[in-house]
Amino acid sequence: MTESKKCCAPHDALDADALQTVAEELEATFQDGVAAGRMAGLLLPSSREVMELADMLFDVIFPGYLASAEQEHGKAKEALTARLKELNHSLYGILLRACRVGHEAKECGECKIVEISLRAAGILIGELPAIREAMKLSVKAAYAGDPAAKSFDEIVLSYPCIRAILVQRCAHVLYREGIPFIPRMLTEYVHSLTGIDIHPGAELGEGVFIDHGTGVVIGETARLGNNVRIYQGVTLGALSFPKNACGMLIKGQKRHPTIEDDVVIYAGATILGDITIGARSVVGGNVWLTESLPAGTKITARMPENVFRYASEVR
Amino acid sequence: MTESKKCCAPHDALDADALQTVAEELEATFQDGVAAGRMAGLLLPSSREVMELADMLFDVIFPGYLASAEQEHGKAKEALTARLKELNHSLYGILLRACRVGHEAKECGECKIVEISLRAAGILIGELPAIREAMKLSVKAAYAGDPAAKSFDEIVLSYPCIRAILVQRCAHVLYREGIPFIPRMLTEYVHSLTGIDIHPGAELGEGVFIDHGTGVVIGETARLGNNVRIYQGVTLGALSFPKNACGMLIKGQKRHPTIEDDVVIYAGATILGDITIGARSVVGGNVWLTESLPAGTKITARMPENVFRYASEVR
Amino acid sequence: MTESKKCCAPHDALDADALQTVAEELEATFQDGVAAGRMAGLLLPSSREVMELADMLFDVIFPGYLASAEQEHGKAKEALTARLKELNHSLYGILLRACRVGHEAKECGECKIVEISLRAAGILIGELPAIREAMKLSVKAAYAGDPAAKSFDEIVLSYPCIRAILVQRCAHVLYREGIPFIPRMLTEYVHSLTGIDIHPGAELGEGVFIDHGTGVVIGETARLGNNVRIYQGVTLGALSFPKNACGMLIKGQKRHPTIEDDVVIYAGATILGDITIGARSVVGGNVWLTESLPAGTKITARMPENVFRYASEVR
Repeated sequence: MTESKKCCAPHDALDADALQTVAEELEATFQDGVAAGRMAGLLLPSSREVMELADMLFDVIFPGYLASAEQEHGKAKEALTARLKELNHSLYGILLRACRVGHEAKECGECKIVEISLRAAGILIGELPAIREAMKLSVKAAYAGDPAAKSFDEIVLSYPCIRAILVQRCAHVLYREGIPFIPRMLTEYVHSLTGIDIHPGAELGEGVFIDHGTGVVIGETARLGNNVRIYQGVTLGALSFPKNACGMLIKGQKRHPTIEDDVVIYAGATILGDITIGARSVVGGNVWLTESLPAGTKITARMPENVFRYASEVR
Repeated sequence: MTESKKCCAPHDALDADALQTVAEELEATFQDGVAAGRMAGLLLPSSREVMELADMLFDVIFPGYLASAEQEHGKAKEALTARLKELNHSLYGILLRACRVGHEAKECGECKIVEISLRAAGILIGELPAIREAMKLSVKAAYAGDPAAKSFDEIVLSYPCIRAILVQRCAHVLYREGIPFIPRMLTEYVHSLTGIDIHPGAELGEGVFIDHGTGVVIGETARLGNNVRIYQGVTLGALSFPKNACGMLIKGQKRHPTIEDDVVIYAGATILGDITIGARSVVGGNVWLTESLPAGTKITARMPENVFRYASEVR
Repeated sequence: MTESKKCCAPHDALDADALQTVAEELEATFQDGVAAGRMAGLLLPSSREVMELADMLFDVIFPGYLASAEQEHGKAKEALTARLKELNHSLYGILLRACRVGHEAKECGECKIVEISLRAAGILIGELPAIREAMKLSVKAAYAGDPAAKSFDEIVLSYPCIRAILVQRCAHVLYREGIPFIPRMLTEYVHSLTGIDIHPGAELGEGVFIDHGTGVVIGETARLGNNVRIYQGVTLGALSFPKNACGMLIKGQKRHPTIEDDVVIYAGATILGDITIGARSVVGGNVWLTESLPAGTKITARMPENVFRYASEVR
């Protein structure tokens, strides 16, 4: 009897009373307001709408690569304009919502919040043609730098760095304009897709190319010149984090590397601190670097016989 | 005629006879029952419903961050309760299905399977308030540990480790309770999203923070104390896999590191075997470690002039 | 008045004139035809339909693991045949579209394009039974090689390498048959899901197993024998890229390693160039290798006391 009751009865894990207890305990954890989101009355921008925004930006810069192009040939121009209009409308709304939550603490009035959101959205849309020109240079750099690349179209369709760099460039505009949340949400969306983690604060020159890309980390205050080429697993990070008198981290200070034009950084290299890698330098795979390099330096991790242990054996 | 037939005729790759041959050959590959899934009559839990479960768990712990919050302010509490009820219903169903397939070999009766599923679902839901408290400590640790972090909300909205740690904590509860499939499916879903691969068996203390995260691997029997901070590319792995007399791997044995409170492990470090890293130790980037460290040890990979080959040249 | 106008008026970022200017500037960037996609009249295969293709291939090889199996037990065979028919129809259509765009430059006639697409689709579908047999060996290799693996079904449900290797095997067939775009799009989709980047050109033996996988890169001309086991962060890459007389990269040449049967390559190892790692060799974690190894060699990066700086201190 008990056995058969066990098998047939329950359709839920907890009964109503037990669930009520959990609900009350859970609600209590929101009282301190830490990361309380909706329970604290916050109407945050959501991950899903930021993903759609990122895809919309990609689709305006590279129309026809992400989604199917079912329209007739002659209508491409109209489709582009329509997409731009849609962006012109939705971008502002998302930024407005982010600013309302993020600038609350600073007691901005609604008018100021409208002003910031409007300005940032307008500037980003206005920079889209320049961003497309920069992205074309990245596509060309990928073709010139990777023997496996078959065509420009293949690069746009399948190279993860195109998605990562494009979205970071847009995020950087919003970051510069003081928009909260959205810049980092945009870059984390492409980080999730590509394994390439470029902070929206980083400044990228033209023709930057990142091959493979998984594990690449480029920090908030890093600066990259033109035609920099980077491989998988490269970190451009901070060496140490200065703290203030209260022992809190000082935020916003330049703490990541500056990489000058035409530098190549091979897989797994780690470059840390506010140092400068001079133009045309080549940093070899797995190099660990915390000091500046003059222009034209080539540095490789020495891996000679005395660093390895060989053993010839049949397992 | 032949040419025009070629161009116009085919709408399918193979004709009916050729396709029939392939279908028969393919069916024959399921005869041995290896990974035969539906063809072996298994009603497995699917990747897609486990993804939804993971998102539901995130949404209960951090309401309003993942999906848009369109409801009015006053209704937040009701929305949370509703979501909890939904979880209370669906979690049990998914676990039941997983147990029916996974415990089949062990010849559990249906009653035993119901009991295991019910118990595990109830325990997980009961632990959600504690999991939320632990996650709040991770959010605070991220803010304290990363100069680029702007606010608690930004961390929940965009730091990949929040998603990875939250889902691993839930998966760990199910793992402890002997649920098959679902724990690993949950952690592999967030591995796919974040590049952070924490086995559901690993035990995580409070206030764990993983920055960037891509390439992090934390093994099944690893144990992390409180306030451990880990960077991208860190492996807490096994050094060797002991085998039994038949040459088969011995499963379940402790083979991964124990990391004590307040340890920091920088990018790319590899720590292998059932060793202990003492409290407050700092393990530098790229360190390769297979021996225990006493508390308060600082270890860095020495990368002096004699490990590098410099060359100054213009390419 | 001005203030209230500011707050209420704008619903878009830019007014009609400003948007028109941006639209014209953006359109101008498509004039050179570089990565112009839809604006250049290209009806490209889209990322989304290639994702669906990849999932369909997975679902035919491992039915019931990806999506829920709601059908009755007896109908599994019919469901498989139906899925195969669907693939037989849609695969050809996608390849045809890819070939129309990708082979345009080479001035293939429509008949030739139909022929190439038809042949490639037929060959891939015909090879599915053999691909399933090879995948079963990878599942068995995962079970034999990972102490954390609990069952074959768990491996198919949650090990990322199963998805990555399966899709790469299919992509490789299309690559061999000269299909543009689709092979790389398929492997980049699973790269995005798993962090495992295997070029469609790579040749994989049977029973290949990649554990964890994030950061693995396997280049276009790499060849792997049977039962090769690889861990996270391993690169099988090119050492240098030979250029032709015009300074352009020479494409297609063998430039990646050959890994013979039963080799194990531990986490973070980097193996570069057209070299051969002899059968049964073991390459240790973080090893950097640019020279061939004879069969049965064991090589580990020496990390003795003199490469580390220890310091015992309380922070």
